[in-house]
Amino acid sequence: MCKNTKMEQTLWVAHTLFDQGMVTGCTGNISFKQEDKIYISKSGSCFGNLTNEDFAILDIHGEILEGKPSKEYPLHLYLYRLNECNQAVLHTHSFYSTLLTCQARQKEELFKDLLITTPYLSIKTKNHIGWVPYFAPGSQELFESFMTQMNEKTNLYLMERHGLIVSGSSVMNVFDLISEMETSAHLHYCLNQ
Amino acid sequence: MCKNTKMEQTLWVAHTLFDQGMVTGCTGNISFKQEDKIYISKSGSCFGNLTNEDFAILDIHGEILEGKPSKEYPLHLYLYRLNECNQAVLHTHSFYSTLLTCQARQKEELFKDLLITTPYLSIKTKNHIGWVPYFAPGSQELFESFMTQMNEKTNLYLMERHGLIVSGSSVMNVFDLISEMETSAHLHYCLNQ
Amino acid sequence: MCKNTKMEQTLWVAHTLFDQGMVTGCTGNISFKQEDKIYISKSGSCFGNLTNEDFAILDIHGEILEGKPSKEYPLHLYLYRLNECNQAVLHTHSFYSTLLTCQARQKEELFKDLLITTPYLSIKTKNHIGWVPYFAPGSQELFESFMTQMNEKTNLYLMERHGLIVSGSSVMNVFDLISEMETSAHLHYCLNQ
Amino acid sequence: MCKNTKMEQTLWVAHTLFDQGMVTGCTGNISFKQEDKIYISKSGSCFGNLTNEDFAILDIHGEILEGKPSKEYPLHLYLYRLNECNQAVLHTHSFYSTLLTCQARQKEELFKDLLITTPYLSIKTKNHIGWVPYFAPGSQELFESFMTQMNEKTNLYLMERHGLIVSGSSVMNVFDLISEMETSAHLHYCLNQ
Repeated sequence: MCKNTKMEQTLWVAHTLFDQGMVTGCTGNISFKQEDKIYISKSGSCFGNLTNEDFAILDIHGEILEGKPSKEYPLHLYLYRLNECNQAVLHTHSFYSTLLTCQARQKEELFKDLLITTPYLSIKTKNHIGWVPYFAPGSQELFESFMTQMNEKTNLYLMERHGLIVSGSSVMNVFDLISEMETSAHLHYCLNQ
Repeated sequence: MCKNTKMEQTLWVAHTLFDQGMVTGCTGNISFKQEDKIYISKSGSCFGNLTNEDFAILDIHGEILEGKPSKEYPLHLYLYRLNECNQAVLHTHSFYSTLLTCQARQKEELFKDLLITTPYLSIKTKNHIGWVPYFAPGSQELFESFMTQMNEKTNLYLMERHGLIVSGSSVMNVFDLISEMETSAHLHYCLNQ
Repeated sequence: MCKNTKMEQTLWVAHTLFDQGMVTGCTGNISFKQEDKIYISKSGSCFGNLTNEDFAILDIHGEILEGKPSKEYPLHLYLYRLNECNQAVLHTHSFYSTLLTCQARQKEELFKDLLITTPYLSIKTKNHIGWVPYFAPGSQELFESFMTQMNEKTNLYLMERHGLIVSGSSVMNVFDLISEMETSAHLHYCLNQ
Repeated sequence: MCKNTKMEQTLWVAHTLFDQGMVTGCTGNISFKQEDKIYISKSGSCFGNLTNEDFAILDIHGEILEGKPSKEYPLHLYLYRLNECNQAVLHTHSFYSTLLTCQARQKEELFKDLLITTPYLSIKTKNHIGWVPYFAPGSQELFESFMTQMNEKTNLYLMERHGLIVSGSSVMNVFDLISEMETSAHLHYCLNQ
């Protein structure tokens, strides 16, 4: 439970998400910014046994300096470029958040419900949730769609039939946000059966 | 699993609640009384990696002696002042207990159901559950509302659209009580679908 | 994960049941027979941090040789006396098994459903499940009721609004049986919503 | 979290499946191929405390060279013989996958639903799921039925009222596949209530 460096915090968050079941199998990817470089979990790595050797390194322009990054690295890059305050990005298929994105409900109504059930999700997202329509994982269409949806009002995007992506000022901050979203999605499921 | 000091027991309880999913992200706060001081988890700390350096210290009158306490420290203080037997206080957003507080049911009927399903919740709460109406977390209105609801008959308060707070004679005792409440709330959910 | 002595196996089972959420808070009690003595978890102990110092010792006639045993020790004793093959006894409030005992269903139909869903529960219980009507935990009425229900055909008893108790030839055997019962109860819940 | 040898990876996967609740009690069996030998977990072993001493060794023709293998070893052997690319086989009773096999639904419709909910199960199974009708676990009928169902198009077979079996090019690969199946089955349950 060493909390000194960004890498140590990131490994702790990855292992914790896995142990708590918010990430399963070899899904999910996580990154952080240190000085002018992006450290992102490698393609095919597993949160459950992630070590510092499982990170690729990019520069802010997207040039790959070391290792083979997760195929979804463009989503991470966009968020770092959008806002300098973003120091960490996390993408998961967390169960109840993903479930929410598979349900054919009116989105405006859904978001309103999510944001008023308890006060925390609204506080942590500044009352805005983004939505990314479905395109194949890792496809150019997905990246382009994400770019058009991205905006400075929100730090959390639900991805249709896929999962979610969050950004924040630290890896603990994105961990806290994704946990709150998952709890809110679980409450929503139970309250709407 | 060292069980010698109050601090060690408190850290064990915090880590256990996190590992069992009864506390997620950076939510929840925990405190204990030692001699005439209150040790309470700091603002922004995370149960999952809590250490003895993550505690602020207050005196019984609420003066902050060291560190920045959780913003909900007044709730803890009130419970220590209410009854000298209270030696530990725990506040969480545990899932099924919180779910219960989001449902617009008749409270009297709800409490009756909860207390008769299995015998344990009734035994551990002496058959009384408190209720705190919704006000924003950390707000003066919440603290004042809580003060008017507090009484010596109960050691467990459900907080509307928020979670719950429990007090007891030891940190193991509040851990056992919050676990029983969560189980009872989960049973209630399954029995009423 | 030391598996050499009965005590080590018993501690491993207690910690595992707690980590998997099949035992919560300070509930549950576990015992094993070694030579002519019964080792049983003490009153007030917690499976999550159980050590070899948390066991009381009884002889087979029920005389307490050391420590204060769980108040439900008579249930354990009865099972050791019923059948010499019983070398371990485990009592828990595991969630889905307990849920089952809170539902006012026809028991014969319920047992039939449980035993045919998958083949394992039937194999492991030799196709018999016992039932103990509700009496207050630790009461003389509960002990007497249990004695009249006990029989050599089954090694698993559901206890109304309370939980379950299982016996077997080893602590790993009772762990496997209680896990199978919990899975079967969970399947039953999902298949009957 | 040592990831060097096939045995180390296999033990990590077994412990992880147990810790995440995808394997409970003493159920499940796992094997891997090394040179021309099959290492398979022994009869009666428990994923939660599996060590390298809990493996039996077979040759590819099914001759037992060491230890008593799980009684379901013929299923593993068939998959290694079917396709040289299979280097690991895993059989579990994972909860939501098993639940799916207990429900009397039209299989074609079920598989279609499973494969379109999110894109991952389709990607990881190459869009084919196998089905094995119910016969008693470990019976000759089950083995024969499995042989007639086996084919090179799929690496995942649901087993009616029993669980599932998966094969793949590495133990991490079968772990990832079984996790994806379990998530898809859980989504299916929630989306069809």
